[in-house]
Amino acid sequence: MFVTLDQIRQAQANLAGVILPTPLQYSRTFSEWSGNTVYLKPENLQKTGSFKIRGAYNKIAMLSDEEKKRGVVAFSAGNHGAGTAYAAQSLGIQATVVMPTHPVPSKRNAIIHYGAKIVDGGSTSITMHDKAKELEQTEGLVMIHPFEDIPIIAGQGTIGLEIVAELPEVDTVVVPVSGGGLISGVAAALKEVKPAVRVIGVNTEGAMAMYESLRHGYPFEVEKVDTIADGLMAKKPGELTFAHTRKYVDEMVLVSEEEIAKTVVSLAERAKLVVEPSGAAALAAMIHRRTQISGEKVVVLVTGGNVNMSLLATLIEKYT
Amino acid sequence: MFVTLDQIRQAQANLAGVILPTPLQYSRTFSEWSGNTVYLKPENLQKTGSFKIRGAYNKIAMLSDEEKKRGVVAFSAGNHGAGTAYAAQSLGIQATVVMPTHPVPSKRNAIIHYGAKIVDGGSTSITMHDKAKELEQTEGLVMIHPFEDIPIIAGQGTIGLEIVAELPEVDTVVVPVSGGGLISGVAAALKEVKPAVRVIGVNTEGAMAMYESLRHGYPFEVEKVDTIADGLMAKKPGELTFAHTRKYVDEMVLVSEEEIAKTVVSLAERAKLVVEPSGAAALAAMIHRRTQISGEKVVVLVTGGNVNMSLLATLIEKYT
Repeated sequence: MFVTLDQIRQAQANLAGVILPTPLQYSRTFSEWSGNTVYLKPENLQKTGSFKIRGAYNKIAMLSDEEKKRGVVAFSAGNHGAGTAYAAQSLGIQATVVMPTHPVPSKRNAIIHYGAKIVDGGSTSITMHDKAKELEQTEGLVMIHPFEDIPIIAGQGTIGLEIVAELPEVDTVVVPVSGGGLISGVAAALKEVKPAVRVIGVNTEGAMAMYESLRHGYPFEVEKVDTIADGLMAKKPGELTFAHTRKYVDEMVLVSEEEIAKTVVSLAERAKLVVEPSGAAALAAMIHRRTQISGEKVVVLVTGGNVNMSLLATLIEKYT
Repeated sequence: MFVTLDQIRQAQANLAGVILPTPLQYSRTFSEWSGNTVYLKPENLQKTGSFKIRGAYNKIAMLSDEEKKRGVVAFSAGNHGAGTAYAAQSLGIQATVVMPTHPVPSKRNAIIHYGAKIVDGGSTSITMHDKAKELEQTEGLVMIHPFEDIPIIAGQGTIGLEIVAELPEVDTVVVPVSGGGLISGVAAALKEVKPAVRVIGVNTEGAMAMYESLRHGYPFEVEKVDTIADGLMAKKPGELTFAHTRKYVDEMVLVSEEEIAKTVVSLAERAKLVVEPSGAAALAAMIHRRTQISGEKVVVLVTGGNVNMSLLATLIEKYT
């Protein structure tokens, strides 16, 4: 039921030469603001602009030849779709991505550019998921789930291995959480390699499914999500990701929507990084002191950079 | 008269553990747009937000104990001042930075934050230079020139060594040019280590001192500079940097002001990097096909990220 260290190491081998290195970036400014020694893990600079390619590529690379011939399907408004499309293209496999009826044009174009077929999935994540399930059944496509699957969790977990290899003395790792695939893999990798590392998950007040799930003790479906962080909109974690998070994660904290928005601007101004709101949530928790830790070596995951340019301009004008 | 490979290697040793690694970043998008295989060298992610710390630190580290006690002075509207201030602070030396009467507040604040004293230098580069010369003479401060000095050239040249070490098969390196310190060091390093590498310098049409100097055959002072690229405003290269450029650089090309502005936006949208206009000039030359090369492995220097946030927002709104 739980991902193993061997599976994460196998994912790392599968990804070798495919993903880009994203070495830790020390930030003097954010260290001062947070009272810790802060390093960013800039996965916004990863291929396709987010970490999602790690899980998607690992999953697709492990399919049987027969499954590869059938092709794959993902449902996604953005980063997971791009990761799946890119991974499938590199492996010579046909991908179909179920997107919302009105997708962000730049995200739609990226996915088409990576050779995937786009299918209209309606306007909610439920109708998109249904459409993907339908294609799985009627056309025999292999589902590439955004989080609830061991090979996906193992792929995202390679980030944990990279962090410990580069900064063995790391004390704490801070991770934004949506469905929970990323934190499940990262926390499992870290705790298996170095049990003393603390792992903190971050939800936004506008979308707090994992926070509520831990509080209730089971995968809890929140009534609504309303957040600027369009990559953190899961209404409910999976059984698998909930179990991993409960086992491996030390704490979940919340950040406000405004803290996220301001942190997008701080990342641009101070770290020279273009980061989408979802990708700024973990740093927001550190610089707005939503955790109790101080004086530690902290690695903050910056998960993606696919922000709409006009939103970025609006945030800059509002917060500088 | 020319910097030697030994001096550049000594600079690399001096900078070890001081500067951040800035590994090359492959860009699929810019490769497609330019018809080459393009790697960015993201010195916008360097400490102080630009490459300038390399030369300044190397220069200051090599001062005698007596000179270190006297303190240093630089004249700069921005990046060289920040590099000098940061380097001096790390080495426990007092720095004075002569700035324009109305500096960009964020640049002024950064320099103060790095512990330097600010002195008003009037409104032009000539009055600023005069003020720095005056402080050199009256207070015995050691001048840290922005480009016309072998230890500065050697420090900037470490970028060339890093490029060849990381990508030994590099064909061409493209470098933005102002006073010429950066391209002098980078071209010398490259040509001494791998003579077959092509080095291309880039001026903007709004500030073309080096371009005109090569055409005339001597360091030529242009009548005026008027450019969005506030780090490329030198009106005349130095004797040293002109000589290095003539000896080592294969070609100078021009880009338009609009090409630079658009490239700032492309770097944000596609490479997820916040880059100042000066730092976008070399990539502008590649994606707007201002060179004849194609099918090559090209490293493009992205020299700095200290762009005013409201300018960035304005450019995004204009060009997306």
